[in-house]
Amino acid sequence: MRILEIRETTIPVAATMSNAAIGFDEMTASAVAVRTDRRVGGAPAIGYALDSVGRYAHGGLLRERFIPRLESAEEAEIVDPETGLLDPVRAWSVLMRNEKPGGHGERSAAVGVLDAALWDAAAKAAGVPLWRLLADRFNNGEADGSVEIYASGGHYRPENQGEALAREVQDCMARGFRTFKMKIAGAALDIDRARIEAAIDAAGEGGRIAVDANAVLDRENWPRMAAMLEDYDLAWFEEPCDPLDFDLTREIAAAYPGPLGTGENLFSAADARNLLRYGGLREDRDLLQFDVSLSYGIPEYLRIVAAVEKAGWSRRRMVPHAGHLFAFNVVAGLGLGGHEIAPDASLVLGGLPDGWTVAEGRVAPGDLPGVGFEGKANAMDVLGALTG
Amino acid sequence: MRILEIRETTIPVAATMSNAAIGFDEMTASAVAVRTDRRVGGAPAIGYALDSVGRYAHGGLLRERFIPRLESAEEAEIVDPETGLLDPVRAWSVLMRNEKPGGHGERSAAVGVLDAALWDAAAKAAGVPLWRLLADRFNNGEADGSVEIYASGGHYRPENQGEALAREVQDCMARGFRTFKMKIAGAALDIDRARIEAAIDAAGEGGRIAVDANAVLDRENWPRMAAMLEDYDLAWFEEPCDPLDFDLTREIAAAYPGPLGTGENLFSAADARNLLRYGGLREDRDLLQFDVSLSYGIPEYLRIVAAVEKAGWSRRRMVPHAGHLFAFNVVAGLGLGGHEIAPDASLVLGGLPDGWTVAEGRVAPGDLPGVGFEGKANAMDVLGALTG
Repeated sequence: MRILEIRETTIPVAATMSNAAIGFDEMTASAVAVRTDRRVGGAPAIGYALDSVGRYAHGGLLRERFIPRLESAEEAEIVDPETGLLDPVRAWSVLMRNEKPGGHGERSAAVGVLDAALWDAAAKAAGVPLWRLLADRFNNGEADGSVEIYASGGHYRPENQGEALAREVQDCMARGFRTFKMKIAGAALDIDRARIEAAIDAAGEGGRIAVDANAVLDRENWPRMAAMLEDYDLAWFEEPCDPLDFDLTREIAAAYPGPLGTGENLFSAADARNLLRYGGLREDRDLLQFDVSLSYGIPEYLRIVAAVEKAGWSRRRMVPHAGHLFAFNVVAGLGLGGHEIAPDASLVLGGLPDGWTVAEGRVAPGDLPGVGFEGKANAMDVLGALTG
Repeated sequence: MRILEIRETTIPVAATMSNAAIGFDEMTASAVAVRTDRRVGGAPAIGYALDSVGRYAHGGLLRERFIPRLESAEEAEIVDPETGLLDPVRAWSVLMRNEKPGGHGERSAAVGVLDAALWDAAAKAAGVPLWRLLADRFNNGEADGSVEIYASGGHYRPENQGEALAREVQDCMARGFRTFKMKIAGAALDIDRARIEAAIDAAGEGGRIAVDANAVLDRENWPRMAAMLEDYDLAWFEEPCDPLDFDLTREIAAAYPGPLGTGENLFSAADARNLLRYGGLREDRDLLQFDVSLSYGIPEYLRIVAAVEKAGWSRRRMVPHAGHLFAFNVVAGLGLGGHEIAPDASLVLGGLPDGWTVAEGRVAPGDLPGVGFEGKANAMDVLGALTG
């Protein structure tokens, strides 16, 4: 099985929303297609991938370093000799050739989006959904029949205060979600308090609302926020401070009794290990939110899972960031704790495939070969255009 | 003072050398020119910068994100209102707008190379060498009249074994260097031992030879290497293990009595702080080698200096990686510990400006305005072509 061609493009994902850290007006993402010589059901197996959201597209890195490295690989370097099929784990070693240690950002996402496309192609070539391929290869065949899922929204938008936020929450609950995550720390404390109360009223209880500070709180102002949040017994308090400030993370974990979540802005096993070593997180309640695609893809994520378990945690405490369909397969196939999802189906990078439904906060993985983009029309508009 | 245009290009810095971690066959770097509307001595002030070596060029990130962000800034956002001159510290905030925390790699170098060009332009507009501008603004006017400097070489090359390595060391000592750093851990232990002994014989004593393992040693094999090195009382043992494995760094620092150096692959104040907190390094002997240009440039490097001093260290223990002329200005202007330099003057990214000499392991900073690229013909061949 050979790679015939790799294409990438940058798509705008601009939105008039913001979180406490950044605005999304100029946000972009990469889309990738890997065309192979393997024909499946009469058509060539093409591996597709869409970037995770929030760290911009990686077109330059893809074109300058990683696509050429992959395209110049010998077939024997990227194929499993037993099956003759593309092996993304082997291809990963090619991608990371002559890359220095440390500096895990940007390239981690460029490698991750290529890795995701290779897994899509590999699963299609094998004729199975990606979650099945992952379960068989890495999880003793044990895939989850349904995945816990939560709705991620509640951004700061010009039009999204009080009532509008409540409607967003109500809509998600009506659609079968059990948990809704909203942004905080981008407004004055009393405004956030009012937003949280509106969301809780709409959801029915504090345990159905999680809050995300997007890493902006510091040593001086986190205690006031934490004290306010303690009033509500929330599902979790996400990314309170700088993701690399492990001392401050430990300080917050020692003081805040409710669950914390963090890790979405740490992009390697080395960084994940440091969070586990120094961050003082509690394996009975906290969430580890490393993003599969931003963290060099599945081969590195498997090292992160191993580090998490070596540190005495259950992988059920791992709930990857970003809500892309690729991560959904990883969650189902590796038996992780849950999946984030943007409930707005019109989003190309997020949302559920067309026709999928949420029931009691869970979703069953589908049967489409590969990642399953072919079941999401707006994603295929972008991806199909790459190869069409 | 306005920015009229920013140009960048990618230059090959391919070489048939390698260290223990990577080969340099396909290595590249970015060159940047920032054309301003300020005329100095009849010519427009152009800020130049060359990447640091070892982490590839950043053309895509520059073109896709950082140059457009800077070019779209209002003049008031990047100029000091008192002087009317470009203020790179203000421009830095524009560059980092809508960038999430964490993930300090690649973009840190793209921002760093732009930052370097802005400082070159700012110093030229002020009519002073960059080291003088930095000393006046950030170091109470106190610049060093000469800078301690060491020669960095001894890579693994097909032709660079035993005698050739000895000649390289002898040549540097004859040219006025006192310390020579060579690569280790890319060959069997007995080969490295023979290379180290050849280098020491050529230098005269072990204290003139530093060794660099380029982060490849792990928990199993570092003790044998450290035990071997202990025989020689070397100047320092650089980057023994993964730069982010702070536990292992601490373990090595507790066991190896000689000086260690590390930090060149940590690219932010957050990462530097973690090394200081968890790495167990010893402020009486170890070296902190954060690379100014790879770490988002001077504004972030100043935060690193502050973190180092807050942790109780002297900034004289800071010896930046990479040996570029930009870092030389930072070392002289901020009063750091020393400067690395590739002794081969034919290198565009490294080497000394034409005609500069080393005496007793020290070099006096020059008087050219800005970074001083105009004193290095082969650098100007590249940089001049960008704007010519």
